[in-house]
Amino acid sequence: MRLPPPSAADPFRPDALRADAVPTLSDVRDAAARIAGLAHVTPVLRSRSLDALAGCALFFKAENQQRAGAFKFRGAANAVFGLDATQAARGVVTQSSGNHGAAVALACRLRGVPCTVVVPRAAPRVKREAIARNGARIVDCEVAQSARDAATARVLAETGGELVHPYNDARVIAGQGTATLELLQQVAAATAAAPALDVVLAPLSGGGLMSGTAIVAKGIDARIGTIAAEPAGAADGHDSLKSGVRVTGRAADTISDGLRAELGPLTFALLRQHCDDVLLVSDAETVAAMRLVWERLKVVIEPSGAVPLAAVLKHRERFSGRRVGIILSGGNIDLDALPGLLALAPGR
Amino acid sequence: MRLPPPSAADPFRPDALRADAVPTLSDVRDAAARIAGLAHVTPVLRSRSLDALAGCALFFKAENQQRAGAFKFRGAANAVFGLDATQAARGVVTQSSGNHGAAVALACRLRGVPCTVVVPRAAPRVKREAIARNGARIVDCEVAQSARDAATARVLAETGGELVHPYNDARVIAGQGTATLELLQQVAAATAAAPALDVVLAPLSGGGLMSGTAIVAKGIDARIGTIAAEPAGAADGHDSLKSGVRVTGRAADTISDGLRAELGPLTFALLRQHCDDVLLVSDAETVAAMRLVWERLKVVIEPSGAVPLAAVLKHRERFSGRRVGIILSGGNIDLDALPGLLALAPGR
Repeated sequence: MRLPPPSAADPFRPDALRADAVPTLSDVRDAAARIAGLAHVTPVLRSRSLDALAGCALFFKAENQQRAGAFKFRGAANAVFGLDATQAARGVVTQSSGNHGAAVALACRLRGVPCTVVVPRAAPRVKREAIARNGARIVDCEVAQSARDAATARVLAETGGELVHPYNDARVIAGQGTATLELLQQVAAATAAAPALDVVLAPLSGGGLMSGTAIVAKGIDARIGTIAAEPAGAADGHDSLKSGVRVTGRAADTISDGLRAELGPLTFALLRQHCDDVLLVSDAETVAAMRLVWERLKVVIEPSGAVPLAAVLKHRERFSGRRVGIILSGGNIDLDALPGLLALAPGR
Repeated sequence: MRLPPPSAADPFRPDALRADAVPTLSDVRDAAARIAGLAHVTPVLRSRSLDALAGCALFFKAENQQRAGAFKFRGAANAVFGLDATQAARGVVTQSSGNHGAAVALACRLRGVPCTVVVPRAAPRVKREAIARNGARIVDCEVAQSARDAATARVLAETGGELVHPYNDARVIAGQGTATLELLQQVAAATAAAPALDVVLAPLSGGGLMSGTAIVAKGIDARIGTIAAEPAGAADGHDSLKSGVRVTGRAADTISDGLRAELGPLTFALLRQHCDDVLLVSDAETVAAMRLVWERLKVVIEPSGAVPLAAVLKHRERFSGRRVGIILSGGNIDLDALPGLLALAPGR
């Protein structure tokens, strides 16, 4: 059963890892130790009927059931609880379309640190509410990356606070990597295969989750495939990694509201090194996959979390007979917006 | 993590418990042993934010993640795997608006036993599909209880098969009771309180789940409160237990498609003895509670499964500060019917 972690009064030690460092498997292990008792150990879900449908063995890491409803709490908790006392006293600043903001707000509340979140106006209601519920100050901005960056810089200058960037931050990437570390440990404990998985997939947006995922997978066993899944309407990550030139400044067009960011310099470099491939899916394919997860696994995930399963179902031959890990990245969905989403991929 | 149980080739022993016997805690313990390895041990979910909203400590037994998507597999597996070889060879017959039918079909497939399910025409598509997917023969009938009974009697006469009634059957009731047995064990293992829970709630329809729940709770500690939750538009159970006369033949008017049956003679007698009270809720209250479970626990439940939480939220003062167990009975919902449901209790 999943009982609450102990109180946030646990002792912690400052993190020597700088935001602009290149994180390693060892940093992910440090992060796992730091956030133990703060973050949930989320379950690994399986479904016979989805395995049959996909023609492979699927292991779903249910980060939708992480605190604040997404994997983002891992990176946020690692960054916030790794601050030294002087940094912590000045407070934390971040920018987010939602899940990272809520996660940083929660981590700051648990440590008793002031928090400001820069939120683009298009962010879903439930995500905005989750930030406010955790007591953070919200600063609104326009959707474009340049507008987000400008507003964040302004708040940083005003407050002197510590930036915890949603993905281009080694502390955050190390924290996100703990999801895959845990997944591989859980599958290894339950099965005899080595490596525990043949391939692991995560959704790609700014690249924090995918970088952490790839560092861990390749660090534990270089034979483990690392595949990013991205909406075709926000293919900047795909195009960046295929061309070797980081694409910036494009407008994203996808219902996956968590996947509209672009790679940062740090995540771009990490993914060039550790990510094997990027697969693209349409929004209709994402919604069809989301519907399958809801119906077969009985868990609520947001569209972004369904993108990797959509990629597996689209490229079935690539995964045939393999042991496939999928990070179900989050479950924060606006139920009132659901009818419009489901209409993109109607039931049979 | 939840890995698949071992194959259905496990040995089993015939059950001495007759369908028309009065089941006891000891029969529930026998059932738990029989279905171990067949049924999932489902998780117990918690949510700080729901606890704060309800003003009590809530322990949700996630039977939506049971095999075939509902607690019904417990009773079905206990009945089907308890048949002796002669009974099994003649096959199994049942009637069901959905979840019980799918559960019996799955149990029969696992044991290699022929199965016929009598299904009222109003049953949701997903539930009908789940029955067919498990290889059972479907016989359609009208919705009224009398029509279901007539069709079932006809099939029994034709096939000479064994009736596994959805609730008025001691073997089924004993199986359903294993959910609460497991819940109390899981909570006891994680906490120091005795009894582990102050009160346990389950939805009320034909009374199989609630009878099993109440037998276990009262059998383990008579101080544990046992409360049934029922839709106001299908209040036959409430009226039967308040008046002492079993109400039959009423038409149900509720969106909770799993809660339209009426008590049988056996469940009526058991609930008169072991069930402390019945609370009624409106369909709008049910949908509001369902929405909360989806948003906060990130799991998919069907309306029937939300009725107990709706009852707790409606009668907050009664549960204040107590340790409250809730059986999330099932997760089989037709997503295409969701917009209409959500409109009954719009978001903020």
